[in-house]
Amino acid sequence: MSSQALKVLVNGRATDCVPGMDRGLLFGDGVFETIALADGKPRYWGRHMARLQTGCHRLGIAQADEQQLLQDVHSLVRDVEQSARHVVKIIITRGPGSRGYRPDTAAKPTRIVQLHPWPGLPAGEEGVRATLCSLRLGHNPLLAGIKHLNRLEQVMARSEWDNADIREGLLLDQAGHIIEGTMSNLFLVFKGDLVTPDLSRCGVAGIVRDIVLHVAEQQGLSVSVRDVSKAELFQADELFVCNSLIGIWPVVSLDSNRYPRGPVTTGLQSLLVDHDDNSHSWRS
Amino acid sequence: MSSQALKVLVNGRATDCVPGMDRGLLFGDGVFETIALADGKPRYWGRHMARLQTGCHRLGIAQADEQQLLQDVHSLVRDVEQSARHVVKIIITRGPGSRGYRPDTAAKPTRIVQLHPWPGLPAGEEGVRATLCSLRLGHNPLLAGIKHLNRLEQVMARSEWDNADIREGLLLDQAGHIIEGTMSNLFLVFKGDLVTPDLSRCGVAGIVRDIVLHVAEQQGLSVSVRDVSKAELFQADELFVCNSLIGIWPVVSLDSNRYPRGPVTTGLQSLLVDHDDNSHSWRS
Repeated sequence: MSSQALKVLVNGRATDCVPGMDRGLLFGDGVFETIALADGKPRYWGRHMARLQTGCHRLGIAQADEQQLLQDVHSLVRDVEQSARHVVKIIITRGPGSRGYRPDTAAKPTRIVQLHPWPGLPAGEEGVRATLCSLRLGHNPLLAGIKHLNRLEQVMARSEWDNADIREGLLLDQAGHIIEGTMSNLFLVFKGDLVTPDLSRCGVAGIVRDIVLHVAEQQGLSVSVRDVSKAELFQADELFVCNSLIGIWPVVSLDSNRYPRGPVTTGLQSLLVDHDDNSHSWRS
Repeated sequence: MSSQALKVLVNGRATDCVPGMDRGLLFGDGVFETIALADGKPRYWGRHMARLQTGCHRLGIAQADEQQLLQDVHSLVRDVEQSARHVVKIIITRGPGSRGYRPDTAAKPTRIVQLHPWPGLPAGEEGVRATLCSLRLGHNPLLAGIKHLNRLEQVMARSEWDNADIREGLLLDQAGHIIEGTMSNLFLVFKGDLVTPDLSRCGVAGIVRDIVLHVAEQQGLSVSVRDVSKAELFQADELFVCNSLIGIWPVVSLDSNRYPRGPVTTGLQSLLVDHDDNSHSWRS
């Protein structure tokens, strides 16, 4: 992947320049969203906006102006090949600040919208290999669930393996519970029942995780959100990971442990393809 | 405080522009140092450089070029009033990256050196008021001790109080141990013995903390670095906090609890004033 976005807007202006005193850089003081763009439209826009606003609210950052973000995205996608998929990354920081940690309540947030090429990701059909990382996520209920810019844990975990065939690393927390992947959420299937880790102490509550929970309940599946032990990871009948770009990836191996691409996972994959969640906010 | 530095160099160039794909902004993927500048010289330069390099090493970022940093600082301080104190902030990020968490081993780190005015800080003589924050630090041994750019915990903790008379907030960890202040390290005195929290699971190992430990041992004081319970905080005979800008501040109150400015704290304060730690690396 390139270290340059195809196009960037910072506060609506075509520049790729963020001042060194922006609190996003000084402290990771902000939130972000990574959004799939297909047929010229950002997928799950309403859900991404809702999580972004939740993140801003939790951090005490002024609510993002969704109309401005929408204009930014429109402006970036105007000239791209509509049939090609892209990735839109939105970053909202608390804005320029002073040197100290104390947030300035008058700070004007910085709005960064980047257009990226679609990454080379395997299709979900075949399933992917995963590894269990040794890094353990720290607990912080105040920051759990939101997609904030403090991502050193993910960076360190992603540094643990080099084998390009391994597509995701799974993360335990300090208490030894399994939480998520470095860039995805995790689901386990036990005798047809769906389980996903509780994210109230750490982890990122993904858009597709929410959709999977919603769709599974609609299908009458038993769904539980709870603490999941490391041992359960190796007892599950099926495992899958999900995020906004990959959709659902069946996990066919976790280190030396093997899993089938089972019926619950493949069923949810096909339901997700048809799931239309663009009902609100986005107008092309 | 202003949201603009007096002067800034990014990779040695006089610009205040960091690209939006810098991993410092994307993930807080980097480290920083905040250095007191007095009489045109950065105080404790050698120790700051040592911690910076430790941080880079822990994160797998290429070692910083200390000669370049020295040149940057020289260039920034050349025209400032030598008798006035300033603050130098150094940020080293992993550099421009791609959208994913995986570090590019070929990444070229970004070097940001900022010159700031000296902040309005109370002198240490009178002592300061502190509060106990409700935010609890998460554990992550891989990141503990280093001064990395993931500082949302400090930002959130510093948001907890508004009273300008309260100069510092003290932080417990998830296990209920007292760890540090939002911007300082903490020492407790019990019957003349010095205790400071163990920082192997969270916290920042400050330059002045190290110097205090060193000086105290030289003076024949009993010194221990260990887990400290919340209860001990209220049983201590003396409390003080320290960092590179404030030196040592006696804590005279923690919420409704009061402490004297005791002999151990004031003794260490006067020893610190005379402590010269500029032996290595810095040439004016």
